[in-house]
Amino acid sequence: MGVVLLVLLLCAGSSIARDVLSPTVDIIAELEKLKHMDERIQKLEETLTKVLSENEDKKVAFSAGLLAFGTEKIGPIGDTKTLEYKKVFSNVGNAYDSNTGIFTAPVKGVYYFRFYGHCHGGTTMAVSLLKNGQNQCSVHSARPASNSNASNGVVLTLEIGDQIYTVLWRNTWVYDDPASYTSFSGFLIFPL
Amino acid sequence: MGVVLLVLLLCAGSSIARDVLSPTVDIIAELEKLKHMDERIQKLEETLTKVLSENEDKKVAFSAGLLAFGTEKIGPIGDTKTLEYKKVFSNVGNAYDSNTGIFTAPVKGVYYFRFYGHCHGGTTMAVSLLKNGQNQCSVHSARPASNSNASNGVVLTLEIGDQIYTVLWRNTWVYDDPASYTSFSGFLIFPL
Amino acid sequence: MGVVLLVLLLCAGSSIARDVLSPTVDIIAELEKLKHMDERIQKLEETLTKVLSENEDKKVAFSAGLLAFGTEKIGPIGDTKTLEYKKVFSNVGNAYDSNTGIFTAPVKGVYYFRFYGHCHGGTTMAVSLLKNGQNQCSVHSARPASNSNASNGVVLTLEIGDQIYTVLWRNTWVYDDPASYTSFSGFLIFPL
Repeated sequence: MGVVLLVLLLCAGSSIARDVLSPTVDIIAELEKLKHMDERIQKLEETLTKVLSENEDKKVAFSAGLLAFGTEKIGPIGDTKTLEYKKVFSNVGNAYDSNTGIFTAPVKGVYYFRFYGHCHGGTTMAVSLLKNGQNQCSVHSARPASNSNASNGVVLTLEIGDQIYTVLWRNTWVYDDPASYTSFSGFLIFPL
Repeated sequence: MGVVLLVLLLCAGSSIARDVLSPTVDIIAELEKLKHMDERIQKLEETLTKVLSENEDKKVAFSAGLLAFGTEKIGPIGDTKTLEYKKVFSNVGNAYDSNTGIFTAPVKGVYYFRFYGHCHGGTTMAVSLLKNGQNQCSVHSARPASNSNASNGVVLTLEIGDQIYTVLWRNTWVYDDPASYTSFSGFLIFPL
Repeated sequence: MGVVLLVLLLCAGSSIARDVLSPTVDIIAELEKLKHMDERIQKLEETLTKVLSENEDKKVAFSAGLLAFGTEKIGPIGDTKTLEYKKVFSNVGNAYDSNTGIFTAPVKGVYYFRFYGHCHGGTTMAVSLLKNGQNQCSVHSARPASNSNASNGVVLTLEIGDQIYTVLWRNTWVYDDPASYTSFSGFLIFPL
């Protein structure tokens, strides 16, 4: 009777389980495989958790206009000046600091930045985007007859902690009012 | 004999399965764990389905030039006018309506928008990007000596149904021709 | 005794496993379900591998300024000229070729491109972005009194191998120097 039971149980896990007369299943191998599944599930759980976590880490984007309210020009002064954009449209991930005008990369990755400067006729406007103090790209408008609108942008690979900001060149001006011209935006395209 | 069978079976699921004289496995616990795996797999399936679904939801992007063909100026007229960009370069997700010039957010998330205006010398151009009727950012060129090229952009957090479009200010002009200057683009950076 | 063993084993996989007097479990169905789990895990592994692979494929982005160093103008010449941007800020995925100025799409998907041109007063600047030789969008500044800053951009759906580049119109100029004005950037928004 014990033998019959064994045959029955050997067959239980097989696709021919109900054919109790064909005990062709290696039940030890079957159970080992099932046991191995636990490790595979754990691996999947870990990888999927990482994917979800990276999807959250990707959520870095900001945009800000120069003035929180009112109408104002910044400059000209005798030195370069970091522009502090005060009207924050969005700042997911809190990587942009409106107190300093500085964006600090929270994750290693590839980012897109763009900025826009506006000035009136007869005044010179020049703004550069810097990475850790190094010029990346610029706009320049030398005493245009009418007002000037200039925007530039760049895709940069950043390490955690890299700082991106824009500076007004010495003796130049930017202007803004409630229509929001002069602005600075950026976002993570993908982490590395 | 039954006892021998039990020992054999108790050992079957263990890494020492072939050592039939070491029945140290708690087969009930082993089978409970295997059963628990079913729930873990189901959880993984649900989460992964959600990740795939979100990856599809992310596919929102459009770009359009002002004119489908030919050469034309829009304005000046005595009122603001929503610009309807007719040459659709791309519109994945169909969130942009070329009949109205309005982009309607299909998912909650963070979006990037940019627009570009072109006018001839001697005419004033002013275009703003609006969210649900509220100004977000603008370009303005007051009767430049030569033609004016101005583009601005912004990163915005939108709820489902929020409407983004550009308006030409009253008594101002934009121009376009087959080279496609004046344009409006946007895309979802990430859902929230 | 064999019967008792069988009852015990029949109960082992059930949530009422320890109640050896309630042998209500269909152990064959239980084992079949466990066996089916193997296929579900394999499916999960394949799908997750695809998600990870697509996340890697998404990593396409580049940005380049016109000049690797120094100060120079390009043009005017009697023919259109593809602009070769030599100062490579980033080129993840190696889709941009600084020898030719051409970006070649490595995956089918939706991409964002933007470019910027700068020229001095009194010179005409006109630059278009082309896809496989077809104009997509342009900037144009006809002999401005002061220098001109113009940037445009577009979202395009590309097939593998589609080529994107910018051309300077015949008899027009662009200028650049170490401040990096004139530039070309692009990135994959999402694959299709």
